[in-house]
Amino acid sequence: MTRSILDDAILAKAASRILARLDSNVKNEVLQLMAAGLEQCSEGLLGENQQDVQSARQRVSAGLLSSAALERLTLNADKLSQMAVGIRAVAALEDPVARILLRSELDDNLELKKITCPFGVVAAIVEARPDAVAQLSALALKSGNALMIKAGEEISRTTDAMLAVFRNALETTHIPIHAITNVQGREAVHELLGLREYVDLVVPRGGAELVRFVSSNTTIPVLGHSDGVCHIYVEASADQEMAIALILDSKIQAPSTCNAVETVLLDQAIANDFVPQLVERLRAYGVKVRGCEATRALAGPKIEAVSDTEWHTEYSDLTLAVRVVSGVDAALEHIERFGSHHTDSIVTRDERVADRFLREVDSAGVFHNVSTRFSDGYRYGFGAEVGISTGKLHARGPVGLDGLLTYKYVLSGAGHCVSEYVGPRAPRSLRHQLAVQV
Amino acid sequence: MTRSILDDAILAKAASRILARLDSNVKNEVLQLMAAGLEQCSEGLLGENQQDVQSARQRVSAGLLSSAALERLTLNADKLSQMAVGIRAVAALEDPVARILLRSELDDNLELKKITCPFGVVAAIVEARPDAVAQLSALALKSGNALMIKAGEEISRTTDAMLAVFRNALETTHIPIHAITNVQGREAVHELLGLREYVDLVVPRGGAELVRFVSSNTTIPVLGHSDGVCHIYVEASADQEMAIALILDSKIQAPSTCNAVETVLLDQAIANDFVPQLVERLRAYGVKVRGCEATRALAGPKIEAVSDTEWHTEYSDLTLAVRVVSGVDAALEHIERFGSHHTDSIVTRDERVADRFLREVDSAGVFHNVSTRFSDGYRYGFGAEVGISTGKLHARGPVGLDGLLTYKYVLSGAGHCVSEYVGPRAPRSLRHQLAVQV
Repeated sequence: MTRSILDDAILAKAASRILARLDSNVKNEVLQLMAAGLEQCSEGLLGENQQDVQSARQRVSAGLLSSAALERLTLNADKLSQMAVGIRAVAALEDPVARILLRSELDDNLELKKITCPFGVVAAIVEARPDAVAQLSALALKSGNALMIKAGEEISRTTDAMLAVFRNALETTHIPIHAITNVQGREAVHELLGLREYVDLVVPRGGAELVRFVSSNTTIPVLGHSDGVCHIYVEASADQEMAIALILDSKIQAPSTCNAVETVLLDQAIANDFVPQLVERLRAYGVKVRGCEATRALAGPKIEAVSDTEWHTEYSDLTLAVRVVSGVDAALEHIERFGSHHTDSIVTRDERVADRFLREVDSAGVFHNVSTRFSDGYRYGFGAEVGISTGKLHARGPVGLDGLLTYKYVLSGAGHCVSEYVGPRAPRSLRHQLAVQV
Repeated sequence: MTRSILDDAILAKAASRILARLDSNVKNEVLQLMAAGLEQCSEGLLGENQQDVQSARQRVSAGLLSSAALERLTLNADKLSQMAVGIRAVAALEDPVARILLRSELDDNLELKKITCPFGVVAAIVEARPDAVAQLSALALKSGNALMIKAGEEISRTTDAMLAVFRNALETTHIPIHAITNVQGREAVHELLGLREYVDLVVPRGGAELVRFVSSNTTIPVLGHSDGVCHIYVEASADQEMAIALILDSKIQAPSTCNAVETVLLDQAIANDFVPQLVERLRAYGVKVRGCEATRALAGPKIEAVSDTEWHTEYSDLTLAVRVVSGVDAALEHIERFGSHHTDSIVTRDERVADRFLREVDSAGVFHNVSTRFSDGYRYGFGAEVGISTGKLHARGPVGLDGLLTYKYVLSGAGHCVSEYVGPRAPRSLRHQLAVQV
């Protein structure tokens, strides 16, 4: 490597200006070529991936990599065609750039428009998942952003091969190849995170540790979420059968996802009956229950105690913490103190309590009588998911293509000067006639 | 001071939960009481302010404070009643909380809503301007946020007195007084900026130096802008009279504001005629022109040279830099390299060049044949201005009340489990029937 990350960033910035004004048809043409390229080069791609897989297997044997991670980084013909399908789905989405968010006639021939535009250069730091590389490349291009992507070292050969395919597609359509830059080498991450002048947004895709690392090592805005410590609060008036079904769904359906439930809070008033029932049903599905003192008193000594510091834990497996609370106030306080502002659900028949919970819980998703697992861009109907954000600025909750866009104000006039509108004897005044506001 | 900032932040967070669900009428009642309070206590407030003014005068004499700053911190009966008018104007705005941004029926009895909600706790760091203290207090309350405000030390007595009036209004309406917290002492700022767990957003209001200080000393999201290095590019086909009028308006109308022009770029093709004319007109208004070599060659030796590092300078006074460029590409490059992404305007009769400029210039405001001074929340018709953002995340350009709001997803169901929708034999599918999208 002779070229520096800084040089790459300068070229990416230059490419971003061209991407910002690309015609929708051209963008979609590249996306189709990218998808076709993956299919046409499948043999070569799978060959490169096999080499990554072999090295990864050794790391699994040495206990340095989980078998789940190995599974995620392993490609096959089916996964490859899934990626192509995914890229074509992005091509089919409406062009999100230059959408008019507001149009207002400030005065004769003086028109203000607020329109969506790309961020510029997006840096993505992703774990070793080829599907994430494909998806982010497609989303960045569709949204008119240049992408600098650093994928996990475990898939470096696969990433090289995939991005070569994508750059081929860019070349064919005469788009600067720096629309997508392959950032190589672990040490490059720090350098990339320091390029505040060129990089407009950082998107980490991976576990909580990766997101925390990225967030604490850059002053560039970060779009990502850290933890998914989700709660279900079973209020006294809840339909108890519904509550158990929702808890099971939220826990066992996909326990390693960030929208799985980690803690159940339940009202004292119903604890006597509900706790033993719940624990029995959970155990039938292999869920290990941990609990507060009251829970342990009701469900027997086999339940391990949850220490006070443990409540903020994302188990990511078939483990569930259960706590008996005195009522909605205690539940709200617990969620505020130990939650991660991701997704929290209340089960209740009382609409007033539900309203209060939905209003006061400070999380990206606040649910009533619904499984926490619904907190997902595809389930919300967003078509594409850039990630889930537990931050509150810009994007919160599941983030679709819109998360990669900002906006600008475009003002067109005919020589309008502010001095005509200022002061007691100003000849003109602004009328702000709003035509569009979305 | 016995209470710590941390204790205050905990109380502010608790207050924010109550503010989040306050009725619009109650919020407006407090705002009316706040406005009335300023008027009723005018004598006391002006007395406290006089003491601040006296200390400030000594600092002006010692050369530690500008007379413009002294002017801004000095209150009088008229300014006080302006503040009251401002607060009442905020009361008159529509309640921005709980606005539905999206409503979608995912399935029978499964409704997704995206609704606006407050951030929670907003920390404002403002320079010594009583009007900023009043305005931010009103905007925070209206948007349902708890406010922790640290105003410039030069107005500490004034701030104490004003916030006492506001807390009185809160008490009268039975709202926790920690809805507005007075953060005292310079050393408290660092502590405040470190309270990531409690503070959701930081709003610096003041000069570029303050904003830079805040941004580089916190990992909490910051809403603010640093510099206003605005450009006017006079393209070859421009109406030259219009160009001169716009440059004058953008420079002399209020030279210390961030939306004043600092650099004029003009096409080589028209430089011979245009430069001498422009310089003459600018001089007639006392504007000191600095220029590139070509400008100096055309307008005489009295023009000082601009060094290469100087182009990124916010003069904030009657000084203007002029540079002759070879065409639109050079202009775009100059703006990208030396601008601050605030507001840039093109003067041209060529619609195609204008379109390219508007699309490619990466600034919050991109204007065509308009004075840069229009870049302002009130001129845009936003009713209230929280500030101007040159960042791209969340809020860009002039930011109204919406800048203090985020959103959450509310999902209401009847025991809906994800397992019913997953897998090849799933009994149900999501229909995502969009009812509202704004």
